[in-house]
Amino acid sequence: MSDTITGLWAAATTPADAAGRIDLAALARHAQRLLRGGCDGLVLFGSCGEGPSYSISERLAAAAAVLHAGVAPASLAMGTGCPAIGDTVALTKGMLSLGITKTLLLPPYYFAGVSPAGIEDAFAAVLDGVAEPRLSACLYHIPQVCGVPVPAAVLGRLRARYGATVSGVKDSSGNYADFLAFRAAAPDVASLIGDERLLVRTLAAGGQGTICGMANLTPRLMRRLFHDPAAQAAIEQACAPIDGIPLLKAVLAVMTGEPIWRNVRPPLRAADADTAARVAAMLEALENR
Amino acid sequence: MSDTITGLWAAATTPADAAGRIDLAALARHAQRLLRGGCDGLVLFGSCGEGPSYSISERLAAAAAVLHAGVAPASLAMGTGCPAIGDTVALTKGMLSLGITKTLLLPPYYFAGVSPAGIEDAFAAVLDGVAEPRLSACLYHIPQVCGVPVPAAVLGRLRARYGATVSGVKDSSGNYADFLAFRAAAPDVASLIGDERLLVRTLAAGGQGTICGMANLTPRLMRRLFHDPAAQAAIEQACAPIDGIPLLKAVLAVMTGEPIWRNVRPPLRAADADTAARVAAMLEALENR
Repeated sequence: MSDTITGLWAAATTPADAAGRIDLAALARHAQRLLRGGCDGLVLFGSCGEGPSYSISERLAAAAAVLHAGVAPASLAMGTGCPAIGDTVALTKGMLSLGITKTLLLPPYYFAGVSPAGIEDAFAAVLDGVAEPRLSACLYHIPQVCGVPVPAAVLGRLRARYGATVSGVKDSSGNYADFLAFRAAAPDVASLIGDERLLVRTLAAGGQGTICGMANLTPRLMRRLFHDPAAQAAIEQACAPIDGIPLLKAVLAVMTGEPIWRNVRPPLRAADADTAARVAAMLEALENR
Repeated sequence: MSDTITGLWAAATTPADAAGRIDLAALARHAQRLLRGGCDGLVLFGSCGEGPSYSISERLAAAAAVLHAGVAPASLAMGTGCPAIGDTVALTKGMLSLGITKTLLLPPYYFAGVSPAGIEDAFAAVLDGVAEPRLSACLYHIPQVCGVPVPAAVLGRLRARYGATVSGVKDSSGNYADFLAFRAAAPDVASLIGDERLLVRTLAAGGQGTICGMANLTPRLMRRLFHDPAAQAAIEQACAPIDGIPLLKAVLAVMTGEPIWRNVRPPLRAADADTAARVAAMLEALENR
C-alpha cells in the first residue's frame, strides 16, 4: 500500500482573496510549511479546503501551482468528488494528468436518502470512468455535512470489485461505531479518521492515521498522538473551541501573520478575529509545549 | 412580473441513454409534449431533471437543443445552482446567452448547517456575479433533499436588495408552514409549490402556481387543479404511489413508449418496470377522466 494515504495528513485550508481568487503562492507556502511541520502529506480541496466551493479548473490550477513550487506529487491528494459523475471523472483525470494519484472521494451529494446500491453504482461509475490503474481512492464519509454516507458494506464491496484502487476510507462522521464498521467490512483498506480526538483510539483499533483540519494549526501536536497517548488531553483542549472551518482559517491567519487566511467563500462566513487571536495563543502553547 | 415563473410548470425529467448521454431529440419532444399538454413552461435540470447529476456543458447543450427544436425561451427555465459560486455564475450566464432568462436557483448545497447570513451571501454573490438585469431568479427551497434551506427571511432580504430579479420561490419542502413563511416574508415574490397535493391550498393562500414532477405525467390533471378544487382527490390518488424520480421516469417510459426514460444517473437506480406499468395505467385513467 505504498501509494495509500497513511499517517498524518492535513486537510489543507485554501487561501483566497476578498474576491475569492486562490492565492497560489500562499497555498504553496502552506503546503511546504505543513510538510516541514511533520505532515506526511496534505489533501487539497477536502472539506477544510472548501473543495466543493471551487470549480474543477480552479482546483487543478491550484494543484499545479503547489507542484510547481516543488511539492512532490506523492505528498499530495485532492478532493475530486462532485455531484455529477462526469465532473468527478474529469477532475480525477485532470489530477492524474498532473501526476497526483490519490483522491479523497466524496459520493455524489445532492440527493439525500439514496440507497447503498445507488452509492455503490456512483463510485463504480467514477472508477470505471477514470479507468486508471495508478488511481488510489480514499472514500470520504462525512454524512452530517454532505448528507450522503459511505455505507461500510459499500466500501467492502468496492474493495472486492476494484482491489487496491480502493485504498482507503476517511471517516469524518465523528462516530467511533462507523469507524469500527469500516474496519470490519474492509480490513485491508486503510482507515483514516477525521476527528482528531479519535486518533489515539482508532490507531489502537487498526487505524492507519488521520486526514484532519488541526494538522493545519498544530502538526507537531498531531504527530505526538501517534506515539504518546498522553497527548490526548492536549488535543481535546486544542479542538474544543474550533467550531468550524472559518475559525480554523482565522486562527491560521493569526499564526502565519497572513490575513488572507481569514477569508472564506460563501456560504461560509469569516470568524471573529478576537476569538481567533485568543485560540491561536492557546494552540501555540500546546504546539510548542 | 411578466418574466416570472407562474402557473403550471413541469420539473422536466431528462432522458439519457445507458451510458448517461442525454437524448436531445427525446428531450425536445418531451418539452413540446408538455407545452401541448397545457404546461405554461418547463424547468430543465431541476431535481426531477437530475440537474446536479449533469455538468454545466451538458446542461447548456441540452437547453440549446430544446431551443433549436422550436421551444420559445420564455417557456423555459433552468436549474443553475451549483456548490461552487463560480460554477453557478458561469452556468447562469451561459443560460442567459442562450436567451433563457429564468433560473431555478439552489443555494450551494455541500455544507449543511450554514447560517442564514451565509446563504444570503451566497445568493448575493451569484446575483452580483451574473449582474444581468434580464435575470429572473426563482430561489429553490428543498432542504430535505439537498440539506440547505432558503430561509424565508433571506428571501425577503434578497427581494429588498435585488428587486424583481428575485422573482420567485419554489417551496419543495412539503411543509405548508414554510410556504406561509415565504408569503409573509416576501408578499411580492411569486410563490410556487413543489408538492402537487398542496397546490389548491397554496393557490387559495396567494400562491402563483407550481413547478412539479407530476406535470410530466398528468399535465391536464394538474391544470384542472387551478380551477376545480374537486380534483384534489384525484391528485392525491395520483401522487400516492410515486416514491421518487426513478418511478416517475419509469412511468413516463410506459406512457410515451420510449424505454430511454427508465434510465437514471447514479446515485439513483432505475425503478421496477412492473410497478411502473401498473401506476401508468392508473395515472392515464385519472388524466383522461
